[in-house]
Amino acid sequence: MNDLSRPAFDRLTINGERLWDSLMALARIGATDKGGVCRLALTDLDRQARELFVRWAREAGCSVRVDRIGNIFARRDGGDPARPAIATGSHIDTQPTGGKFDGNYGVLAGLELVRTLNDLGLRTEAPIEVCVWTNEEGSRFVPVMMGSGVWAGAFSLEHALSARDRDGIGVGDALASIGFAGSAPAAVADGAPLFGAYFEAHIEQGPILEDAGVTLGAVTGALGQRWYDVTVTGMEAHAGPTPMRLRKDALFAATHLMQEVIAIALREQPHGRGTVGSVDVFPNSRNVIPGRVRFSVDFRHATDDGLARMDAALRETAAGAAQRFALRVDVEQVVSFEPVAFAPALVDAVRAGARRLGLSCMDIASGAGHDAVYVARHAPTAMIFVPCKDGISHNEIEDARPEHLAAGANVLLHAMLEQAGVAP
Amino acid sequence: MNDLSRPAFDRLTINGERLWDSLMALARIGATDKGGVCRLALTDLDRQARELFVRWAREAGCSVRVDRIGNIFARRDGGDPARPAIATGSHIDTQPTGGKFDGNYGVLAGLELVRTLNDLGLRTEAPIEVCVWTNEEGSRFVPVMMGSGVWAGAFSLEHALSARDRDGIGVGDALASIGFAGSAPAAVADGAPLFGAYFEAHIEQGPILEDAGVTLGAVTGALGQRWYDVTVTGMEAHAGPTPMRLRKDALFAATHLMQEVIAIALREQPHGRGTVGSVDVFPNSRNVIPGRVRFSVDFRHATDDGLARMDAALRETAAGAAQRFALRVDVEQVVSFEPVAFAPALVDAVRAGARRLGLSCMDIASGAGHDAVYVARHAPTAMIFVPCKDGISHNEIEDARPEHLAAGANVLLHAMLEQAGVAP
Repeated sequence: MNDLSRPAFDRLTINGERLWDSLMALARIGATDKGGVCRLALTDLDRQARELFVRWAREAGCSVRVDRIGNIFARRDGGDPARPAIATGSHIDTQPTGGKFDGNYGVLAGLELVRTLNDLGLRTEAPIEVCVWTNEEGSRFVPVMMGSGVWAGAFSLEHALSARDRDGIGVGDALASIGFAGSAPAAVADGAPLFGAYFEAHIEQGPILEDAGVTLGAVTGALGQRWYDVTVTGMEAHAGPTPMRLRKDALFAATHLMQEVIAIALREQPHGRGTVGSVDVFPNSRNVIPGRVRFSVDFRHATDDGLARMDAALRETAAGAAQRFALRVDVEQVVSFEPVAFAPALVDAVRAGARRLGLSCMDIASGAGHDAVYVARHAPTAMIFVPCKDGISHNEIEDARPEHLAAGANVLLHAMLEQAGVAP
Repeated sequence: MNDLSRPAFDRLTINGERLWDSLMALARIGATDKGGVCRLALTDLDRQARELFVRWAREAGCSVRVDRIGNIFARRDGGDPARPAIATGSHIDTQPTGGKFDGNYGVLAGLELVRTLNDLGLRTEAPIEVCVWTNEEGSRFVPVMMGSGVWAGAFSLEHALSARDRDGIGVGDALASIGFAGSAPAAVADGAPLFGAYFEAHIEQGPILEDAGVTLGAVTGALGQRWYDVTVTGMEAHAGPTPMRLRKDALFAATHLMQEVIAIALREQPHGRGTVGSVDVFPNSRNVIPGRVRFSVDFRHATDDGLARMDAALRETAAGAAQRFALRVDVEQVVSFEPVAFAPALVDAVRAGARRLGLSCMDIASGAGHDAVYVARHAPTAMIFVPCKDGISHNEIEDARPEHLAAGANVLLHAMLEQAGVAP
């Protein structure tokens, strides 16, 4: 372990102030009046942010590779060029009313790790790579998690390049116009290098760590998701002249189903989640009994079995409501993501890093999608969560505490050094 | 009773075929492809319909008076000019996707009554007037029931004239442009003539008569109405990362309130009605827990006491939900109409007319607003309902059977003759 004694190694930390300053510098590109960031994928602001990252990475001695979907890989060579890189990263595109930390933190924690290794004169056995994945947010172009999705083969490079924004601009043209249409293969299937391990540090985007007063989340995996459109069809009628017993009120039936969505999730604790986020009532006039109601259902669970139970319960409830209220209920599944379990050894590395640094840590499942979820298809993967204020993200008031951000980067440093090994 | 014997009088009927033909002729003005009518108030189509009515009324020997809000009164003189007119009527403006019968039936039943009296050479003691009230529907200009509202003093002539449509066109200008800005006083308070009695024939716009298999409704009054906006404010959060126990789901709380609206109405049968017609969810995104839900409540009841009980129950439920779900619930009353009881003697006249003609008849309360509700503020008033297919109106598929329309007009004839008296 080079000239570092074990006790010295145990005390290794990144420079939290430098990490914070980099976050604040990056956040100035696309800064909003309310303290957030609006930096949509492949815009000129995204170009500026990418160029700043590339400059910083080169200044830190990294070589930079850009692939055909615009993913950026900043590489710090290791002692053994034959070993696959130990990688980390995230994304630097934001939501239209996004914050300073979502994605940006994971990228700059990786950069800070490189800078720290430089400060210490530490050489790893395996190379280190810091990844900037293209268009994670999906606000301007769908599919979301585009760069990591192409890498993992979730969809093809051609499919991603042909996606268009609302103005009809395609991903391929947008990449070229900002100078990030790289030539390196983008998909693992096309020869993009694999990683020996991948870690992603991220704000939690939920309230669990803050509620528990815990500094770090060792992310064990990502919840699976099933999304549905439910449509209840009754009979539109005037509110005044139609007595209660002669109504076929689509909304009244729908409210029972919406409550059942919550009840189904509550039966699947701690990981089951059920949300009705969107409701459209027709004709949506205050003195007309609704003839039709369409609403969304978002189920999440840590296991396939759990999702299957939720699916069955929803369909049974829908059939029961159709019979009970004598109207029609259609349930259409529109999206499905399988649950993902991260690599146990890497999750252990995160727990161990926290323990070594004396930081409180708890296991947590990611309820949201992240680039790491796609990367996990081809590389051992884990994530590190840090608390964010009130669990709020995708919002200009998104906030996180410098000491939590530093703690997460410190654990990242330890977990990655353990995986990469320190060259003699 | 002129030269009519009592038995002959009892058999008097209008000409159902002529009534139907007039309805179909009027329905051609603004006819839609789907068999309905789109003839918004004070448009050129409304002008064409008004001019057709005026021509028919003059051909039937009536004098025509137009007041300052554009209400039309076609008068058939009686034997005693000192007596106030026995009036009937309704409106000929329609909803954007309206039907052939709503309003038009009441006006043309009045015209058919005049034509029948002409055929029979019958002279009434009191004059007969057929009213066409301006802008009952309120689709283009609010307030609704504008012409009768001005007449009754529910709001001022100036207020009505200054109302504007979405293009900024005012009622006063629109009246002038179609040639129906009359000079007669519009409000009773300004000298508009009172009526000795007012009857309005109308399709039920609900399913009660059809469901009961009854031909006529003797309308005892109109339900009072209280409308509310209810706003539930929770906390918007991501569906994925936010566990169930840490949510403040505004929609989940709102569904309990929406169900209670129905429960409150069910406790107030047979006349209580409760409807949630409109729901707006914020941000209405399928993977975001709703932070705010606003929905409408429409309560109707035959009595003030009933409405007061419903109001109290809603507010108690809202307060309970705010506490139970630890979020904010605001209840704002936005509209209130007192219940109206029609003149018992006139309701009796309707029942008696039906009995005399051997037609099935039941008492019924009007759940919707009608010009008659405003007229009732200053004149003894009653309404006659006839069934409409599936209880549907304000819809291009609105339909009614010729024999039901004729039956209603026959009862109107008998009830009005009884009030007007037959001159020797």
